Amino acid sequence: MSTFGLIEYQDALPDVRAIYDDIMATRKTDYINNFWKAIAHDPALLRRTWESIKHIMAPGALDSLTKEMIYIAVSVTNNCNYCIASHTASAFAKGMTDAMFKELQAVIGMANETNKLVTGYQVELDERFQPPLHR
Amino acid sequence: MSTFGLIEYQDALPDVRAIYDDIMATRKTDYINNFWKAIAHDPALLRRTWESIKHIMAPGALDSLTKEMIYIAVSVTNNCNYCIASHTASAFAKGMTDAMFKELQAVIGMANETNKLVTGYQVELDERFQPPLHR
Amino acid sequence: MSTFGLIEYQDALPDVRAIYDDIMATRKTDYINNFWKAIAHDPALLRRTWESIKHIMAPGALDSLTKEMIYIAVSVTNNCNYCIASHTASAFAKGMTDAMFKELQAVIGMANETNKLVTGYQVELDERFQPPLHR
Amino acid sequence: MSTFGLIEYQDALPDVRAIYDDIMATRKTDYINNFWKAIAHDPALLRRTWESIKHIMAPGALDSLTKEMIYIAVSVTNNCNYCIASHTASAFAKGMTDAMFKELQAVIGMANETNKLVTGYQVELDERFQPPLHR
Amino acid sequence: MSTFGLIEYQDALPDVRAIYDDIMATRKTDYINNFWKAIAHDPALLRRTWESIKHIMAPGALDSLTKEMIYIAVSVTNNCNYCIASHTASAFAKGMTDAMFKELQAVIGMANETNKLVTGYQVELDERFQPPLHR
Amino acid sequence: MSTFGLIEYQDALPDVRAIYDDIMATRKTDYINNFWKAIAHDPALLRRTWESIKHIMAPGALDSLTKEMIYIAVSVTNNCNYCIASHTASAFAKGMTDAMFKELQAVIGMANETNKLVTGYQVELDERFQPPLHR
Repeated sequence: MSTFGLIEYQDALPDVRAIYDDIMATRKTDYINNFWKAIAHDPALLRRTWESIKHIMAPGALDSLTKEMIYIAVSVTNNCNYCIASHTASAFAKGMTDAMFKELQAVIGMANETNKLVTGYQVELDERFQPPLHR
Repeated sequence: MSTFGLIEYQDALPDVRAIYDDIMATRKTDYINNFWKAIAHDPALLRRTWESIKHIMAPGALDSLTKEMIYIAVSVTNNCNYCIASHTASAFAKGMTDAMFKELQAVIGMANETNKLVTGYQVELDERFQPPLHR
Repeated sequence: MSTFGLIEYQDALPDVRAIYDDIMATRKTDYINNFWKAIAHDPALLRRTWESIKHIMAPGALDSLTKEMIYIAVSVTNNCNYCIASHTASAFAKGMTDAMFKELQAVIGMANETNKLVTGYQVELDERFQPPLHR
Repeated sequence: MSTFGLIEYQDALPDVRAIYDDIMATRKTDYINNFWKAIAHDPALLRRTWESIKHIMAPGALDSLTKEMIYIAVSVTNNCNYCIASHTASAFAKGMTDAMFKELQAVIGMANETNKLVTGYQVELDERFQPPLHR
Repeated sequence: MSTFGLIEYQDALPDVRAIYDDIMATRKTDYINNFWKAIAHDPALLRRTWESIKHIMAPGALDSLTKEMIYIAVSVTNNCNYCIASHTASAFAKGMTDAMFKELQAVIGMANETNKLVTGYQVELDERFQPPLHR
Repeated sequence: MSTFGLIEYQDALPDVRAIYDDIMATRKTDYINNFWKAIAHDPALLRRTWESIKHIMAPGALDSLTKEMIYIAVSVTNNCNYCIASHTASAFAKGMTDAMFKELQAVIGMANETNKLVTGYQVELDERFQPPLHR
């Protein structure tokens, strides 16, 4: 479910169906996640989001699995349960091992802790870390 | 600066100095970040945090650079400026290229957007993503 | 349910019942949301919160529907599922159209993305945007 | 400044310059915010973000000023100082009055408070607010 | 500074001045924080906020210092630097010792870490912790 | 449940079982929360987290109940439902009265509101609150 219910393939208008087709072809699956079926109520948002995701999550300087793990790190920090569940499943499907999952969670936990220690102790930035860091 | 000022090496008690020595030896540097000099007011916290970081950030199933990028993803999502600046510098020092930095930021941005679209549209979790995902 | 269970009208003390009456009269409804029935365990909190909400959400320089949409934007960003569900229902009841809902969500998503791009790229504030902006 | 420094118009490659031109033409200004000059290091991100913003922030079912105020609500909740400063300036430029600013902030503050009261009291969602809310 | 500049005592209208007087009398000080001088542009918000704070932060079942530490825990988690700095100063003024400060920060750090471990591991709530917890 | 399922006592390896024993002995209970059974898939994380929690949450300059309430304040602000439910139960078990619970929630709500008012009004820090605050 979602605010508006989910738009299934057979009920979708042609422009939405074309995006569903591209999602399935790109991901080599016949499954469309509820997320896409929910935002399909706004076909412009669906198209823009899918095209951005397709471009951003494709392998580049970072491989796809690393990108999934970064996605998970954001989703855990934001406490988005849907996103955690779907991207964790996706990361396992892309080859994340149990050992990688555990290290990922340990880093996320530690980063959240030290972020708050820095903030609570009101630590001033070291001069050497001032941007620009790199040119 | 910090709530209590920073504890410099020459002013540190032996147990704090031992941790500073281990930080410098582990990281092959003669520099101690302000973060450590701030939390050194609580030597037990300093020790526990350093030992955890040392263990967690060491290469394992994930390499050190991937771990730094996960740290950055958390820190950006939490809006911790100190953490972003210091871990971004650290990631560049560990070999993050400009192309990797840009892909990292693009994924972080996109994940933050889709986290909120899922939430705002109140999308229900697909049955197939229910944990346990893996055994 | 809630930490303490919900206080129904027939079980409420007179001061709580008076606030329930004012909520129903102001909102022209005979329904009291679980939120009020939960915080009614602290009658001073109930009174203060209701009086603030009543004052703040009344039409003024901004109309009531705009205020509901701002409420939703906060609630989505905070990931508060109860708040999203109840205020989305309330906004539809006040005349939010499907088109307005979709634009609202698109802005929320985009703002969450660009907030993080600014932060991750460590962008310094333009001099012209320094407060005071206006007098 | 930013992680990489800012890309000024005269130093920009043609594809970046074309986007700067479109930003200035669309906004009827000769000023480019630091945000765009920072993310211009990733021309694909610059193009995608600008095209999304241009589309999303244009008047539609919601007017431009309402959209700016929603942007501010997200940015305050996320604590993004750059975003707050630049979008507050932009909202005043688009006709936000002092009275509207004040009501906006009061709603943001109240929503953040009640989001946490709901959460802290662990209030269960009323059956009538379960999605789908609307079809 | 603030969006509108700060309203000093000598420039304040009588209703604002009355609240400033009450703040100073209640707190036994002749100093008004910038926060109050900023929101004084909205006298209704100033009054409502001060009256709520005065009531909520007064000693009750919890003493004032405990309340300040809870305030700090929220502010660190929200990353509100103004709030952290002013409430940390206030807590020290109310008798928080260095040892208390350090334990406070250690708890905040640990809670932020375990919050994310629970979330990332997608741990289901134990039946015995389901609300209502207590009646 | 959790990503990997829960590790029950009878299925645990000796090092995990030893920690479960210490948790039960320290807490004078025969119950292990799902949280520990979930992270037991990573015995190093389990050990480190338990040892830190055991040290940090023990009575010191702050008593255990105050520490639980600080934990709740963080968890509510982070919107971690598992953490709120389990630590609220724990706080009641340690002697939190209904009156204390209500004051705790009122402070959390108020702090979340004023954090955002400060941020939205872009209030500059008073010089007297600049760290270091204390030596």
